[in-house]
Amino acid sequence: MEERLKQQLDFILEIDKEKNILRQTHLSGHGRRENDAEHAWHMAIMAYLLKDYANEPVDIAKVMIMCLIHDIVEIDAGDTYAYDTEGLKTQKAREDAAKERIFSLLPEDQKKELTALFDEFENYRTPESKFAHSLDNLQPLLLNNSNGGGDWREHQVTSEQVYGRQQKTQLGSETLYKVTDQILKENIEKGNIKES
Amino acid sequence: MEERLKQQLDFILEIDKEKNILRQTHLSGHGRRENDAEHAWHMAIMAYLLKDYANEPVDIAKVMIMCLIHDIVEIDAGDTYAYDTEGLKTQKAREDAAKERIFSLLPEDQKKELTALFDEFENYRTPESKFAHSLDNLQPLLLNNSNGGGDWREHQVTSEQVYGRQQKTQLGSETLYKVTDQILKENIEKGNIKES
Ligand SMILES: [Ca+2]
Repeated sequence: MEERLKQQLDFILEIDKEKNILRQTHLSGHGRRENDAEHAWHMAIMAYLLKDYANEPVDIAKVMIMCLIHDIVEIDAGDTYAYDTEGLKTQKAREDAAKERIFSLLPEDQKKELTALFDEFENYRTPESKFAHSLDNLQPLLLNNSNGGGDWREHQVTSEQVYGRQQKTQLGSETLYKVTDQILKENIEKGNIKES
Repeated sequence: MEERLKQQLDFILEIDKEKNILRQTHLSGHGRRENDAEHAWHMAIMAYLLKDYANEPVDIAKVMIMCLIHDIVEIDAGDTYAYDTEGLKTQKAREDAAKERIFSLLPEDQKKELTALFDEFENYRTPESKFAHSLDNLQPLLLNNSNGGGDWREHQVTSEQVYGRQQKTQLGSETLYKVTDQILKENIEKGNIKES
């Protein structure tokens, strides 16, 4: 086997580990905790189906691959819960080291390409990145809402915290933010999210 | 919320169930059984990274969405193991009913679009479909090989059975078939696949 293909297959086998990285979100039907690979799969399909709601036109292949790879660094760095203040302080350093190690398994050109896509997602500036973040927010919100807001209640999340994160959805999609706002208001009303 | 978006979100919530459909393949590191959503996530990333090995040029966004949705029907129809002769007889009827029910949750135009993508995958005729099938074959092969061929041994799979399925990989990618053939020969040599 030529070296390039061997490197690609090594990377492909390595990222299998993402299926073991558990998130705080639970599957619909009050299921088990979701893992990062499932979350990314779900986001990429959402991207395809909801692309017309992006504020600006997006390159859909780019949004999909961005969604699919955006959590790969968590293989080493672990999932940092969106409302874990301590964890968030060290998240960047942990994820940078992971990014270097894992993407270095690839041939140099693809290492550069995937690192650039990962950084573009993190930097929140391009239409594709902003829209992908809207989906990263909306996907667990839909699951959590379908489960009666159990994940918010378990972590005693406040309206300030949840809006702090979710309001950025409007940078990617005004339409999806309207749905988000409606779902959040209902869950505050029901006491699933603490009013702050 | 407008009706179109409501239908889309209903579909998105429904397909969450795919994360509970278990396959016969085990995760690397002698892990638990893989589910359909994880398998599809892995295939879509492989499609992106390995696209230059497709026999014919492919529309990569199309290959990715095809990979992501190709097992959605198994939410109702269940996973049919590639070497389950009895299950394979009823697979088509079970999957057709599932396809109709699940894709009907979407707005009519997207129901048509996803049904067409699903059928295109099944029909094995376009470059995108053939390449997606190569990945559908290669992904579990890589995991199984990394685990010492445990899935083949458990099911006492023969070389005739495994080549019957895997030889079609060459329709999508001669290069990926060469790797496949090499991995299969090694596993026959080691007795993980029964010579037939
Ligand atoms: Ca994350």
